[in-house]
Amino acid sequence: MSKKVSTQPYKGARDFYPEDKRIQQWMFSKWKQVIEQFGYEEYDAPILEPTDLYLMKGSEEIVQEQTYTFQDRGNRSVTIRTEMTPTVSRMIAGKRQEIAYPARWYSIPNLWRYERMQRGRLREFWQLNVDVFGIESLQAEVEMIQIIDGIFQAFKAKRSSYVIKVNSRKLVNSLLTDVCGLDKTQAIQAIRVIDRKNKMSLSEFAEAVNKIVLDEDKTQKLITALTATTIEQLSDQLSNHESMADLKRLLQQTQSLGIDNVEFDLSLMRGFDYYTDIVFEVFDTDPDNNRSMFGGGRYDGLVAQFGVDPVPTVGFGMGDVTFMNFLESHKLLPQIRRKTEVIIILREETSMGKVQSIAKKMRAENVNVAVDYSAKKVDKQFKSAIKQGVQFAVFVGPEEISSEQYILKDLMSGKEVKHGLERTISILKDRRLKK
Amino acid sequence: MSKKVSTQPYKGARDFYPEDKRIQQWMFSKWKQVIEQFGYEEYDAPILEPTDLYLMKGSEEIVQEQTYTFQDRGNRSVTIRTEMTPTVSRMIAGKRQEIAYPARWYSIPNLWRYERMQRGRLREFWQLNVDVFGIESLQAEVEMIQIIDGIFQAFKAKRSSYVIKVNSRKLVNSLLTDVCGLDKTQAIQAIRVIDRKNKMSLSEFAEAVNKIVLDEDKTQKLITALTATTIEQLSDQLSNHESMADLKRLLQQTQSLGIDNVEFDLSLMRGFDYYTDIVFEVFDTDPDNNRSMFGGGRYDGLVAQFGVDPVPTVGFGMGDVTFMNFLESHKLLPQIRRKTEVIIILREETSMGKVQSIAKKMRAENVNVAVDYSAKKVDKQFKSAIKQGVQFAVFVGPEEISSEQYILKDLMSGKEVKHGLERTISILKDRRLKK
Repeated sequence: MSKKVSTQPYKGARDFYPEDKRIQQWMFSKWKQVIEQFGYEEYDAPILEPTDLYLMKGSEEIVQEQTYTFQDRGNRSVTIRTEMTPTVSRMIAGKRQEIAYPARWYSIPNLWRYERMQRGRLREFWQLNVDVFGIESLQAEVEMIQIIDGIFQAFKAKRSSYVIKVNSRKLVNSLLTDVCGLDKTQAIQAIRVIDRKNKMSLSEFAEAVNKIVLDEDKTQKLITALTATTIEQLSDQLSNHESMADLKRLLQQTQSLGIDNVEFDLSLMRGFDYYTDIVFEVFDTDPDNNRSMFGGGRYDGLVAQFGVDPVPTVGFGMGDVTFMNFLESHKLLPQIRRKTEVIIILREETSMGKVQSIAKKMRAENVNVAVDYSAKKVDKQFKSAIKQGVQFAVFVGPEEISSEQYILKDLMSGKEVKHGLERTISILKDRRLKK
Repeated sequence: MSKKVSTQPYKGARDFYPEDKRIQQWMFSKWKQVIEQFGYEEYDAPILEPTDLYLMKGSEEIVQEQTYTFQDRGNRSVTIRTEMTPTVSRMIAGKRQEIAYPARWYSIPNLWRYERMQRGRLREFWQLNVDVFGIESLQAEVEMIQIIDGIFQAFKAKRSSYVIKVNSRKLVNSLLTDVCGLDKTQAIQAIRVIDRKNKMSLSEFAEAVNKIVLDEDKTQKLITALTATTIEQLSDQLSNHESMADLKRLLQQTQSLGIDNVEFDLSLMRGFDYYTDIVFEVFDTDPDNNRSMFGGGRYDGLVAQFGVDPVPTVGFGMGDVTFMNFLESHKLLPQIRRKTEVIIILREETSMGKVQSIAKKMRAENVNVAVDYSAKKVDKQFKSAIKQGVQFAVFVGPEEISSEQYILKDLMSGKEVKHGLERTISILKDRRLKK
């Protein structure tokens, strides 16, 4: 009975009031539509996972600092999921033999990370996860880029407003070990520095690289390669690498599909350790929101970590908050109307039996109709209907019931018409078809 | 890299492989369709809530025994949501003044309870929550029963397969205090015993009641009232009670809407303390699955606990597992096909550019198409397509590309036709319209 309990949601997480949920659902349903056109099927899994699942990838640091991890009442350590990749790998491994390949799976899970709040980062967020299992060839990567582009196109984004950068982990490894002669430990450290390259000035970056490499000549080679803007600027050892051939084919094929905003960037790393070959990342080109939005790549080794045969895998994960920021920045968010199409406003002394029968007939024709049973005066009901954002109102009282003629008022334009029930229903239905 | 990490989900929670998710989505979308026809809008909230939110209702016992409660990294006590009612009350209270009433809200959250596993009970489950705020009159209860019935009807359930029992908390209070003369403590204890009535024999029940009442005459009065099967069997004091008039009107109105399986049951209690007046509960009548499925009622006091003006509220919550058990018991689960309509099977040496252009044309017409890029032999691709459960396959190779004629094979019936691409697409689209 304490009045101290707050009406606010938990810090870093969002309440979705109907007007917020409507936007989220609109965004999700567009995502789903595009992905299903490519033959992907939805899956899901529990929000709680055994903590071991995350430790497996060697992400002890993230588990210890950024997760919601606790002991359950049976003393098992559990973690609220922070990403979907370990889970989907677990699920594929669990039915490794039964699944028909290529398997195309997607999910839109909510994920939790305990982190400091900043723009585009919340503690609870949703993330579209798209993965294809069982394709060894580059066609999997081509398809992922097609899907990503298809999603942006579905929201009417211009290709000049986003860029899809691609790279190859194998090529980077070759640069670090073959070209620059780094050992394994140095290479891992270098990857971490390169991953933060855009957050530093060029001289800071050179200094950070040199601290690892401890050799001016090697540092220079690395910097030259990493700042190359065309493939031609690279050394023969790199430009003749087999992964470079893959990247060129990827660029060609996506180009011929009309996707002209795919770029090669040798400095693109992607944070996660599990990527094995091609990686990609999508950037907003808006100067006010110029940032990495999301990415993905090939991770052929994860499923096998559960002790089954490996499965070639390519996938990406895209957060709801960053994508929504993109839509807002580029003014791609339309006004989304509520699904309730009409509200019945009752005059005093209206027969409930008759009102229910009118509403029932409308619903039988799939019209979404709310009845205002608040027993308030007509003008108050009218104001509430406008506040609720419903487009049409129908007035029902003793007179309408006896004449069987009803006023249908468009609350947006103020226009009204008077018809029998059948005609009223068909006006509402016709309007929907036109949408 | 340990092989000990299990591929199983956390105990008591479910993985939803695509074939499972498809059924869940089919069920949810039918729920949504019915509810939206009544003008309800979807909302959502974080899965983590401050633990105080659940303590507020005086449910310390549940919080201490059945919740996932832990300290976050900022030392705040948080609980994974166990039910949606406290959350939705918090949200309404948070925008008490801005919201237009009647407000009709629904949500399908996943909820977590740490409990022993048994049929129909899991640790993670989904629950449809439907609530209407701002209607004082009985029309809110009539609408809830209409919605519940509408949901069952949407799944083609016979009204003989479920029964909706109704009662009034006010009437029960009158029985306990006015008719039987119990004091407040006795009344609360009696409600708990009555709530478990169906789990005892009549003599066990009588004994349990007598232990509280300590008076043979009062016990007898209580038992007589609680086992009455018609309103006429009740004493005048009860049958003339104003809540009885409400119940009669509720039965009449639902009957006139064609809902003939609503029954009065004075022994119906509903567990939660927050109900203030009419309560209802839905039972499966199947002898093999004869059990309470879900329920709801009026709880006019909860929103006001946040220190704002009270809001009249009626709502119910329906779990996915119990509802699915009902559908299974009554054989109401259809075969649900996957959304991917066609798979393109590639012959050796097929031009990728051409395949992508064919798939792109199909997708532009909203056909869901997967391409088998696995590079396996045609018969292996064919077997995989059948295993994936896709209905149609299109074969593409150099010959098809040069003749521009494609075989469209129905993998279920084995029938095949050969046409140009346009005609193939229109066959696939026509088929969908017929569904």
